[in-house]
Amino acid sequence: MPRYRLTLEYDGGPFVGWQRQENGPSVQAALETALARFTRETPETTAAGRTDAGVHALGQVVHFDLSREWAPEKLRDALNFHLRPAPIVVVEAAAVADDFHARLSAIRRTYVFRILNRAAPPAIEAGRVWHVDRRLDVEAMHAAARCLVGHHDFTSFRATTCQAKSPMKTLDRLEVRRAGEEVHVDAVARSFLHHQVRNMVGTLKLVGDGKWSPADVRAALEARDRRAAGATAPPEGLYLVAVGY
Amino acid sequence: MPRYRLTLEYDGGPFVGWQRQENGPSVQAALETALARFTRETPETTAAGRTDAGVHALGQVVHFDLSREWAPEKLRDALNFHLRPAPIVVVEAAAVADDFHARLSAIRRTYVFRILNRAAPPAIEAGRVWHVDRRLDVEAMHAAARCLVGHHDFTSFRATTCQAKSPMKTLDRLEVRRAGEEVHVDAVARSFLHHQVRNMVGTLKLVGDGKWSPADVRAALEARDRRAAGATAPPEGLYLVAVGY
Repeated sequence: MPRYRLTLEYDGGPFVGWQRQENGPSVQAALETALARFTRETPETTAAGRTDAGVHALGQVVHFDLSREWAPEKLRDALNFHLRPAPIVVVEAAAVADDFHARLSAIRRTYVFRILNRAAPPAIEAGRVWHVDRRLDVEAMHAAARCLVGHHDFTSFRATTCQAKSPMKTLDRLEVRRAGEEVHVDAVARSFLHHQVRNMVGTLKLVGDGKWSPADVRAALEARDRRAAGATAPPEGLYLVAVGY
Repeated sequence: MPRYRLTLEYDGGPFVGWQRQENGPSVQAALETALARFTRETPETTAAGRTDAGVHALGQVVHFDLSREWAPEKLRDALNFHLRPAPIVVVEAAAVADDFHARLSAIRRTYVFRILNRAAPPAIEAGRVWHVDRRLDVEAMHAAARCLVGHHDFTSFRATTCQAKSPMKTLDRLEVRRAGEEVHVDAVARSFLHHQVRNMVGTLKLVGDGKWSPADVRAALEARDRRAAGATAPPEGLYLVAVGY
């Protein structure tokens, strides 16, 4: 069975998340429906990251098997035709080796969290950024972010419902930078715990607001207790940018 | 009567354009309704540029008179409250001199036209870019754009319905550059004719496609005939970025 890899871009707003669920439309269900319409096959699809409700993707990676061979460009264009009008697009399609696995083969996941940091709410970017109206101290946020980089027990930044066996993760990069009217938080790791990026961003915001110091973030990490860290930042600012293999 | 200046950001998608019209919702009508709700006054509003249906603004400028004085931040926040859920936002409000006129005092208008130049259509940026799937020759487009800079008779790039008295305009800047997966056309002038930016972009696209040479663009300009130039690019890629005074 030929195996295929897709790179997907989607607006997470209308979806319950990547994963098929009973309670609403999922990216997975939309993709599998489009696949069935075009190929008359019903393969199971596996994604690199199970993005939550409202979380966007610029470079989600998915794999599945089909019984016949398709030219990758043909697969891409046909899926894009059948996906309309859902805000999901196949940016790239490729035939891959049988042992490629979108989730298990991934060695690096890159996220960006976009904060619109100005008095006025977003008009054009509504639903695509977290609006924070008071000016954030980006230098302090960046300094605090450095406390989280490295191999740590991230229990304090993990959803209480997280099903990962271990809370130990290695955070390779966490950087905060101003980008025009926005503040971007870049996060890179082999893998993340459930809600980890949003919980880190919600905590860094306390630093940006001047309520917490970078030392408070370090203390929250060391507490190994979800209640010790800040609130979960909303999903609409989060983007799965890329997955590395 | 105190005079106020607003800087507006809006998604032009749901609107018939800036100007109040019988056939659908306009940005002007939404703004005037919000103003009336908050101030109990019904001033006429004047914008720097009458953006067409579907055209976006990052920095549209508007002025109007009110009988009483308001703190600019209060005006901004109250209007943003009353504008919801329309995708229109007051980015900035200011009290200005009585002789300030959003349209007549403007000495520089800056537009950007965004083309998404990749095989896959937009998911996240749907309605905010012109999707062109074949790779454009940006260097050739940029060379052709240089033929249009300067003081010229722009009849070939003017809507046949354009009501300006003269087709003579000075185009200060027209530059084409690649920005990731997008191609951006930056256009700056004291003022533009109706559809001028979109007609220039539609013509430059012929160059990007390899169908026209830069010399063909020069010949189209010199023909002083709308039929000599390319098609009008769609409104969803166009943004009024800023107005200078």
